[in-house]
Amino acid sequence: MAGYQAPLRDMHFVLHEVQRAASLCLAMPATAELTTDLMDAVLESAAQLATEVLAPINRSGDEEGCRFEGGRVLTPAGFQQAYKAFADGGWVGLCGDPAFGGQGMPKMLAVLVEEMLMGANTSFALYPILSAGASLALARHASDELKALYLPRLYSGEWTGTMCLTEAHAGTDLGLLKTRAVPVEDGTYLITGSKIFITGGEHDLSSNIIHLVLARLPDAPAGPKGISLFLVPRHLPDAADQRNGVSCGAIEHKMGIKASATCVINFDGARGFLVGEPNKGLACMFTMMNYERLSIGLQGLGLAEHSLQTASAYARERLQGRATQAPANPMGPADSILVHPDVRRMLLGIRAELEAGRALAVYVASQLDMAHFHQDARVRERAARLVALLTPVAKAAFSDRGFEGCVQAQQVLGGHGYVREWGLEQNVRDARIAQIYEGTNGIQALDLAGRKVTRDQEGLLATLYEELEVFMDTVGGDSVMQEFLSPLQKNLKEFRSVTAWLQQAAATDPDETGAASVPYLRLLSQLLYCFMWCRMVVAARDGLARATGDRQFYEDKLAIARFFMVRMMPAALALSAEIKGGCATVMALPADRF
Amino acid sequence: MAGYQAPLRDMHFVLHEVQRAASLCLAMPATAELTTDLMDAVLESAAQLATEVLAPINRSGDEEGCRFEGGRVLTPAGFQQAYKAFADGGWVGLCGDPAFGGQGMPKMLAVLVEEMLMGANTSFALYPILSAGASLALARHASDELKALYLPRLYSGEWTGTMCLTEAHAGTDLGLLKTRAVPVEDGTYLITGSKIFITGGEHDLSSNIIHLVLARLPDAPAGPKGISLFLVPRHLPDAADQRNGVSCGAIEHKMGIKASATCVINFDGARGFLVGEPNKGLACMFTMMNYERLSIGLQGLGLAEHSLQTASAYARERLQGRATQAPANPMGPADSILVHPDVRRMLLGIRAELEAGRALAVYVASQLDMAHFHQDARVRERAARLVALLTPVAKAAFSDRGFEGCVQAQQVLGGHGYVREWGLEQNVRDARIAQIYEGTNGIQALDLAGRKVTRDQEGLLATLYEELEVFMDTVGGDSVMQEFLSPLQKNLKEFRSVTAWLQQAAATDPDETGAASVPYLRLLSQLLYCFMWCRMVVAARDGLARATGDRQFYEDKLAIARFFMVRMMPAALALSAEIKGGCATVMALPADRF
Repeated sequence: MAGYQAPLRDMHFVLHEVQRAASLCLAMPATAELTTDLMDAVLESAAQLATEVLAPINRSGDEEGCRFEGGRVLTPAGFQQAYKAFADGGWVGLCGDPAFGGQGMPKMLAVLVEEMLMGANTSFALYPILSAGASLALARHASDELKALYLPRLYSGEWTGTMCLTEAHAGTDLGLLKTRAVPVEDGTYLITGSKIFITGGEHDLSSNIIHLVLARLPDAPAGPKGISLFLVPRHLPDAADQRNGVSCGAIEHKMGIKASATCVINFDGARGFLVGEPNKGLACMFTMMNYERLSIGLQGLGLAEHSLQTASAYARERLQGRATQAPANPMGPADSILVHPDVRRMLLGIRAELEAGRALAVYVASQLDMAHFHQDARVRERAARLVALLTPVAKAAFSDRGFEGCVQAQQVLGGHGYVREWGLEQNVRDARIAQIYEGTNGIQALDLAGRKVTRDQEGLLATLYEELEVFMDTVGGDSVMQEFLSPLQKNLKEFRSVTAWLQQAAATDPDETGAASVPYLRLLSQLLYCFMWCRMVVAARDGLARATGDRQFYEDKLAIARFFMVRMMPAALALSAEIKGGCATVMALPADRF
Repeated sequence: MAGYQAPLRDMHFVLHEVQRAASLCLAMPATAELTTDLMDAVLESAAQLATEVLAPINRSGDEEGCRFEGGRVLTPAGFQQAYKAFADGGWVGLCGDPAFGGQGMPKMLAVLVEEMLMGANTSFALYPILSAGASLALARHASDELKALYLPRLYSGEWTGTMCLTEAHAGTDLGLLKTRAVPVEDGTYLITGSKIFITGGEHDLSSNIIHLVLARLPDAPAGPKGISLFLVPRHLPDAADQRNGVSCGAIEHKMGIKASATCVINFDGARGFLVGEPNKGLACMFTMMNYERLSIGLQGLGLAEHSLQTASAYARERLQGRATQAPANPMGPADSILVHPDVRRMLLGIRAELEAGRALAVYVASQLDMAHFHQDARVRERAARLVALLTPVAKAAFSDRGFEGCVQAQQVLGGHGYVREWGLEQNVRDARIAQIYEGTNGIQALDLAGRKVTRDQEGLLATLYEELEVFMDTVGGDSVMQEFLSPLQKNLKEFRSVTAWLQQAAATDPDETGAASVPYLRLLSQLLYCFMWCRMVVAARDGLARATGDRQFYEDKLAIARFFMVRMMPAALALSAEIKGGCATVMALPADRF
């Protein structure tokens, strides 16, 4: 029952040796002072928080859950103290705008911090990560007056924030939402409606909760173009009577993340403040969406890492059966289950996808940082194209693989994985939601296959292809790399062929896009993971060439990369064929026969 | 929130139209009186029990769970009444030996009954299904005296039975177990040891609990050849003081099946009776194992069916978004989500694997029946070969696909799938254990790839190939069938090639077997599902030719079969390539680097 340990060595590898973060930071004035040492110090400090403060209340939080009493939500024992430590450490404002008290750190660094928080205690992590997301939307779109009042208190953790989108009849299709906003004389609005599935909508961690609410103005156009964004505080900070018409109607009883309060929030003529322009609410949401989606993907990475640590520790100790050839533990009653190829297959499979995912998270985050911080507009635009293309892939791939990895790790423990004691069943339950919220993974796939691929107006894919070609050209002269580059080349070629097929097919029948979307996203994620493994191999070979005494770490990377190429890349074959099977058999069954 | 409905129409199709059960029963004296009508009457009666008695206490049972108080286990509200109704209906002894009060029904019929019980309420179903399994071991191996005393009361449900195998340090590797059996003068034994993960080890449903316990005699050889089987009743029926040294030490807190008591059972010099021969305990277990493994597979089918029904009902009603072309619901605010290809893909995927699985369950069960009931020894032996080969595939494939289907169904509901209300999250939690208990699916795969394939002494695969060739020869003259037979032929060829590769590779390196095992089992299951869809297509075309007014049912079968062939069979491509990737990259990482 080893607790969660932050994978600092691997994070250092990905951030510095693969991504060369300090060089990139140096090229951007806002982050130019960030050195490797400074970033490592942040990571070490976050690791201490995750392992010493958050991990110890992970299982107890699951067992106790949140309680709803008299309209208030009570978080489990220890959450208030942990939140205070978290806020006091300045972690909520890690990426916040320095003009309002944030620390202005790049997302490259934040993704690793968030992975640790999610891995140690997802339920807890959601409170500050949602606050950071709401802060981001305000920082980009709110008036200076609103920013000055709210941002410093959100960054300090004194107040927390939420996103109120979903209504009972409108989840994916936000165009259907009904919450109304009526303007009043003083320039504010009265908000009325009911929102569901609001993470952190009510709790006892902070003195105020700032809701960002999607609602319709009177006479707004129907559908998604008639939605505006409002800031609605639970308590009005400036009013004599601070009460606002905001109440929590219930909390959900869920499969997992039980210590995270998922609330029904009712707005009953509550006073709100417009954020951004009228009827442009969805656009305001989308600017923060890429950050939030990546963060939710990290939940999958963090929980897979946590599960892998537990399953590996169990496998090293558990004695069952014997190796097929010489016993590995001849003096003991049996060998450790690591002698069994299938146990290795499971553990290596989790690790190969997790480590590729971590590298991709830092890569996508680096593009987010370039898109925001870089001085050169062409660099910003190019990075923004990669962000647009890769964010839905990262969110869905990390959360799908994360769930699958938690399930696989549970399998390593057999019956011991099914009981509470080892914590793996909680990880499975907690990981499951990441495939659903922040836009289901089906919606991520439709965003990719539709807006980003079959209706690609901006050359998103061309930018990715260029990125891959430049990489292959750079390292392709090295014959030792062929073992890894050759699957990358082969899979890139196949991906381009599938993409061309899909673009053509969708032009004839638009249902081809939806029928292909989920396997297509998975196919692209396979290609990207292959790309990441090639990048990691280059860095590992550099490490070996330096001969710094950490040789085994780099040798391991080569071994995992080989496992990935040989045993996992073939998954792409099935995905290509499934996509090219087309939509006819998907659409044939009459709707009333489902 | 539609409750569970028994899929009687589809069961009738599989049992009678595909499997032609009544003809097969007629060919075997012990079942010769079973007509189609009689079998349908049993199924209808079971359906009523499942939907009216078991389904209503499924969710309440999960929420309340079992309680452990003062050494006793209390089942949730309603379980005692339901158990009484179940026992009074004679369901425990459905396949029991008629000489001792059983009903002697074939497994072909029982698999459909068990699927319903599992689908309606897995936690409940485990109590009688475990009893039936213990009864089977007794019926095959116990003395007449033990049978006369115990079997009638087990069949009637007055007493229940358990299987006590696992110990804390010995799960998969039973050779390590330590429970001791010391003979005493009267020919009985005193059993001492502690067993864990005992399903139904203690509860309040019956007046006595009959434990079948694996233990070691003094001076028994070490390892699996020194294990004997004992009957150890909780209460000694013949003794003046009925108390025996059997006690429940604790119950497990689990991810799911919370209304099924999973117990630590301590034997403290408890009186036991030898079943079968000394040191042949594992062999006695194996005769019942094929029945039990198939039954556990049915848990996957039943829960996938339950989840599919809920997800389909939700999808028909839920309005979000619009069809890509003409609106399907132009007067409503949006179309049902069935217009979205990806929602259809998810639902069709569950259904295609579920219906193939159901057909395979009946097929394997028919082989179990022939192996047991048929008069012709050659038929019995041939059927036994198919049972040996196919049982591990059925157990693992049904439970893996069942879990995946429950997860997929949950995804259809988005956030509503993650909260308790719709029941899908419970199905996911309940389905998960079927991949673990009764031999993990990794162990099923090793049994298949090892004993049954790379060390195939009995021509198991040759028998399967013959079965497939005969089928293809019989229907191959029909040009309309080519659409379905062509993927079957292609995949059979590829499967034979992979098998030949594996047999050769394993002869050089025995770790190839374990490295290939899980994808190899999955590959065989794909081939078998393809075979089952071809058989169902033949039956559906017969149905259409009869033109009985149920045409749409048969048209649906053709539509699902096409979806399966085009969109799902490509999975085999990836599995073949993964297997042929070999074990080198699986075994490369040093054990201390996991």
